Amino acid sequence: ARSIDLAVIPGDGIGPEVVEQGLRVLAAALPAGVKLETTEYDLGARRWHATGETLPDAELERLKGHDAILLGAIGDPSVPSGVLERGLLLKLRFAFDHYVNLRPSKLFPNTTGPLAGNPEIDFVVVREGTEGPYVGNGGSMRTGTPAEVATEVSLNTAFGVERVVRDAFARAAARPAKKLTLVHKNNVLVHAGHLWKNTVDRVAREYPEVSTDYLHVDAATIFFVTQPQRFDVIVTDNLFGDILTDLAAAITGGIGLAASGNINPTGAFPSMFEPVHGSAPDIAGTGKADPTATVLSTALLLRHLGYEAEAGRIEQAVTADLAERDGTERSTDTIGAALAARVSG
Amino acid sequence: ARSIDLAVIPGDGIGPEVVEQGLRVLAAALPAGVKLETTEYDLGARRWHATGETLPDAELERLKGHDAILLGAIGDPSVPSGVLERGLLLKLRFAFDHYVNLRPSKLFPNTTGPLAGNPEIDFVVVREGTEGPYVGNGGSMRTGTPAEVATEVSLNTAFGVERVVRDAFARAAARPAKKLTLVHKNNVLVHAGHLWKNTVDRVAREYPEVSTDYLHVDAATIFFVTQPQRFDVIVTDNLFGDILTDLAAAITGGIGLAASGNINPTGAFPSMFEPVHGSAPDIAGTGKADPTATVLSTALLLRHLGYEAEAGRIEQAVTADLAERDGTERSTDTIGAALAARVSG
Ligand SMILES: CC(C)[C@H](C(=O)O)[C@@H](O)C(=O)O
Ligand SMILES: CC(C)[C@H](C(=O)O)[C@@H](O)C(=O)O
Repeated sequence: ARSIDLAVIPGDGIGPEVVEQGLRVLAAALPAGVKLETTEYDLGARRWHATGETLPDAELERLKGHDAILLGAIGDPSVPSGVLERGLLLKLRFAFDHYVNLRPSKLFPNTTGPLAGNPEIDFVVVREGTEGPYVGNGGSMRTGTPAEVATEVSLNTAFGVERVVRDAFARAAARPAKKLTLVHKNNVLVHAGHLWKNTVDRVAREYPEVSTDYLHVDAATIFFVTQPQRFDVIVTDNLFGDILTDLAAAITGGIGLAASGNINPTGAFPSMFEPVHGSAPDIAGTGKADPTATVLSTALLLRHLGYEAEAGRIEQAVTADLAERDGTERSTDTIGAALAARVSG
Repeated sequence: ARSIDLAVIPGDGIGPEVVEQGLRVLAAALPAGVKLETTEYDLGARRWHATGETLPDAELERLKGHDAILLGAIGDPSVPSGVLERGLLLKLRFAFDHYVNLRPSKLFPNTTGPLAGNPEIDFVVVREGTEGPYVGNGGSMRTGTPAEVATEVSLNTAFGVERVVRDAFARAAARPAKKLTLVHKNNVLVHAGHLWKNTVDRVAREYPEVSTDYLHVDAATIFFVTQPQRFDVIVTDNLFGDILTDLAAAITGGIGLAASGNINPTGAFPSMFEPVHGSAPDIAGTGKADPTATVLSTALLLRHLGYEAEAGRIEQAVTADLAERDGTERSTDTIGAALAARVSG
């Protein structure tokens, strides 16, 4: 009998609530013969306050053994900024070499927002996940004095850029529009920008059917707002991808619907799926959190593990559910129940 | 008799066209007793192709002597990316220590775009202009090989951060809403982020009347789209400011209306005023460029030189002109003429 051995990191704030509904819908979507085994990991603010640990080596080792990881959200105002982000979330992405941070953007039906009703918005951001300004290579001297100097170093390698660019081209080639847009800032960050641009130009020769273009990140934000239908696959660095995908969520269905996968395409380490939104401590426990982004993340998870039909069923359930939303506020649990019912029905 | 000794760098693409109209409106706004002297500098793509020069030392020296600089746009596809940006535009900003890159965002009447009709959008981005990832401190090794490594270093100093933060607080204190938002990414770029956050927290004690808050840059893009009226003064680093101000233009009247000032508040060097938009080579020479952003930049220029009433007259002329726009396309020249007539009438 087949089975999925899933690590679950509910995390902080609304993380546990949305993960509960994600697991509910995931379980409902699985074929009868497939067993879902979950192991919960107590990581995040509570653990840090209790033990001072963010991600102990032993936990990292145990996590390695699972087929995939479902994560809710990480971060809490009671913990100094960066401690959990760098020590847990980014540590996982780097340790498990999640070099493809996949973030699809679709304009779902019946959503509000400035661009609602534009059916042509359907693009995916392939954000590099293991390099760039996220490497943690910075420091400060004379800290706290008027003579302080603080640095942040963006590290970019041909190895790291090429593998994510290849992944993005393969995705573009498999989509109807077959278009790849590189977003960077190569008129200012000339060295990193040159490496990215050169790599895209070189790999493009192997994909004559894919059309490519280039946008500076500042101009890209304008096109996101004024002409989002021009995008198909976007490939970009870790920081630009972070910024653009929140903006993408804002212009489509909102951050409550944005799913993501931190993918290691080689399979050497488990991939990790999580909503793009944060832990939203202000609404934690109120039942106001929309679990849809987490549910859509479980669809990415299933697709990654080869359950394409089941992933599609979850996405169709979300589309159908959104189409019938009438503005009535529904609780986290109610939305989860409705989606689970649609998926299994 | 008073006079303004202005350096003019028309630059590339639509630069010369919009600068012509900017000067026309500026001249119309000046009181009868004030003489406007302009000196044009031939800098940009043409010069580079002809001589290989971007900004020779002698030109930089001459530029120093003026009261202010009006710049159209820099950049052309015929020049490798970065050559003119780094060698001319950023060289000017750094050489003249333009540490306050001021970019106001207002929702003018009768503009289109996703948020049109929201009268409450009125914020200003104070973008740091001389540090951060813009310092040009990067490089690459084994360039062009599969073992290439490329770096970009963000340099941040207490000196540089504090002076721009102080400028932003002073601006916030002088505005009705008295609110300052720091935008950074201090959960990932912890060292630079810590310096920025600490500086804002410290200077805030001197401005008890100003309320402050903090947003990560990714979250800020969401609020720009969903709740732009929450912003008053935003202070941020060079790269985040670049990205956010293009987005700000997109959500308000469009990039055709976004003005900016590269300001040296000490007066040690001339400040430089320019539209936020680029050289738009695709429409250069067609008369399609909207000179309004340049005209609004001349208002910032006049305000900087102490001509507050004249600056206000230009801004009122733009507001009135926009209120009467009916969607008919008007040429660069027609718009300039209409604004000049309003300002002098
Ligand atoms: C929480 C933070 C470290 C993270 C990031 O910057 O990658 C988040 O914003 C995201 O997009 O997943
Ligand atoms: C042309 C480019 C170097 C410049 C910048 O990045 O600052 C532009 O985008 C701007 O915002 O003025």
